[in-house]
Amino acid sequence: MTEKNIQVRLARRPEGEPRISDFKIVETPLPDIGKGQLLVRNHYLSLDPYMRGRMSSAKSYAQSVDIGEVMVGGTVGQVAVSRHSGFHEGDLVVGYLGWQLYGVSDGTALMRVDDPGIPLTAYLGVLGMPGATAYVGLVDIGQPKSGETVVVSAASGAVGSVVGQIAKIKGCRAVGIAGGSEKCAYVTDELGFDACIDYKRGRLAEDLAAATPDGIDIYFENVGGRILDTVLARMNPFGRIPLCGLISQYNAVEPYGVKNISSLLINRVKLQGFIVSDHLAHWPEAFKEIGQWLKEGRIKYRESIAQGIESAPAAFIGLLAGKNFGKQLVKLI
Amino acid sequence: MTEKNIQVRLARRPEGEPRISDFKIVETPLPDIGKGQLLVRNHYLSLDPYMRGRMSSAKSYAQSVDIGEVMVGGTVGQVAVSRHSGFHEGDLVVGYLGWQLYGVSDGTALMRVDDPGIPLTAYLGVLGMPGATAYVGLVDIGQPKSGETVVVSAASGAVGSVVGQIAKIKGCRAVGIAGGSEKCAYVTDELGFDACIDYKRGRLAEDLAAATPDGIDIYFENVGGRILDTVLARMNPFGRIPLCGLISQYNAVEPYGVKNISSLLINRVKLQGFIVSDHLAHWPEAFKEIGQWLKEGRIKYRESIAQGIESAPAAFIGLLAGKNFGKQLVKLI
Repeated sequence: MTEKNIQVRLARRPEGEPRISDFKIVETPLPDIGKGQLLVRNHYLSLDPYMRGRMSSAKSYAQSVDIGEVMVGGTVGQVAVSRHSGFHEGDLVVGYLGWQLYGVSDGTALMRVDDPGIPLTAYLGVLGMPGATAYVGLVDIGQPKSGETVVVSAASGAVGSVVGQIAKIKGCRAVGIAGGSEKCAYVTDELGFDACIDYKRGRLAEDLAAATPDGIDIYFENVGGRILDTVLARMNPFGRIPLCGLISQYNAVEPYGVKNISSLLINRVKLQGFIVSDHLAHWPEAFKEIGQWLKEGRIKYRESIAQGIESAPAAFIGLLAGKNFGKQLVKLI
Repeated sequence: MTEKNIQVRLARRPEGEPRISDFKIVETPLPDIGKGQLLVRNHYLSLDPYMRGRMSSAKSYAQSVDIGEVMVGGTVGQVAVSRHSGFHEGDLVVGYLGWQLYGVSDGTALMRVDDPGIPLTAYLGVLGMPGATAYVGLVDIGQPKSGETVVVSAASGAVGSVVGQIAKIKGCRAVGIAGGSEKCAYVTDELGFDACIDYKRGRLAEDLAAATPDGIDIYFENVGGRILDTVLARMNPFGRIPLCGLISQYNAVEPYGVKNISSLLINRVKLQGFIVSDHLAHWPEAFKEIGQWLKEGRIKYRESIAQGIESAPAAFIGLLAGKNFGKQLVKLI
């Protein structure tokens, strides 16, 4: 192989919204691999909101990326060279090899996939971390019961779209919140949610009241800020709020102050922050169920695919601003 | 009997801090009692923060008191006349007979008490609703483990004082937050908490950091507002926040905006609003354990006793402002 590796490294910690100049694109020689290692040619990189936290030095649940290091991220690809007994050249693999064309692995957290009926990119979406997140948050933490109302923010995104579709499968009323009429049309017409509120219309409280005539039993939270505050006011007694993300706050210099905390008391709501990697034991069950629903056509998904490793920084900045439509990927081949 | 009943009725819904003129003191004839009913001469009235919610017409977990109605409240007293087969004249009873000298009951939610080793007022405190609240919130929801750090606000109050003492019994580090050096001295020196922070010193964040060197695993929340925000920043991974009350907000016209919501996500914290009356099934277990600890001298308590039914409105207004010291009662005999 005469090819080079191309990596996206963290150049600088962003303040507020990340900029292109916070990243640095670097060409390096292909790495040597030792005994027990393998080299993977990445085909797709997953872009996810949690990566914003890794760019920051603030205390978080995962270690920050150091300045000059390759950005972390989930990938699917193909084994190019193997000196590992468990993997062979040509194997398709899912792992966390980061924002780069080639990654070296010792097999840790690398999974071989070989179901010809499943598109490779699904392992970064519905059958990957975002799908597991939707399942763990809604099913394990939210505990939906038939007839309840489930609201999910960022409803057209990789996680939110699965949350609402599982809610429907569980017999719930599913209401999405998304930015823009096109996303909302997709959420109701394609994904089958009962309603979707375009928060950009600026009538969130009124539209939410109309879409949730019986109040809200479960709010799957991806965004935080003003939307959280507005939803809190409509929670039903004994409601549950799986807190998955706060994307509206990730770039905020001054966090939004949530006023309707009293609803949590009055309605005896359980608000539970969670990180899907704490629930690895539930992933196989999640993937078994989601995989079945996928084959039955009961779970659909959509992808935004940016072309080429060099496009990753701009695509990521767009993701944080809600410019993606469905699961954001970067095609690396 | 030629005696009259004296009642405190709701005269007007308060905006912000209640005023004396929001209450009306009314003298009425003693009520007649029908078959199956009994008349109780109340000896003590319990004053509790939740009563502020009942004065408001806003949606809450319990019905508002109507204008002109007797204020609701827990009482202990003695049966004066009985036409009920389960109660006899002279029986000591605990119930919810409201802000008045005499109350009529059909026996519902009325409990006879007859342990000569237990002072009657304890049934409105450690062995009453506040004690059950502390137990359910800390033990059932908080699930304290030996070696963890438990922080409780309103630490010298009827609920908070029991929370910290149970935390110590469970092998935890107990840290209180209270208003004023006298209350804090009581919390550490009398109740045996490991530390107490006087939030009125204006150094809450620094003092809390010093008192919780290993972070906070459980925050039993009684007050809300700025104190909640400050505590959130020190929560440990997998922390629990039993949300029992928000006394700092009850009189607030504009609610405080809580900024550190991201800590709930980053640290995977469970915040659970609760109302002790949803957990009646656990009260007997709570009282059995607390009663035992009380007899062993491991649970102590303190009371603020206002004299006479006419003093109830001022005592209640004082309670909301933190002027009480320990369980606030009104002596009616």
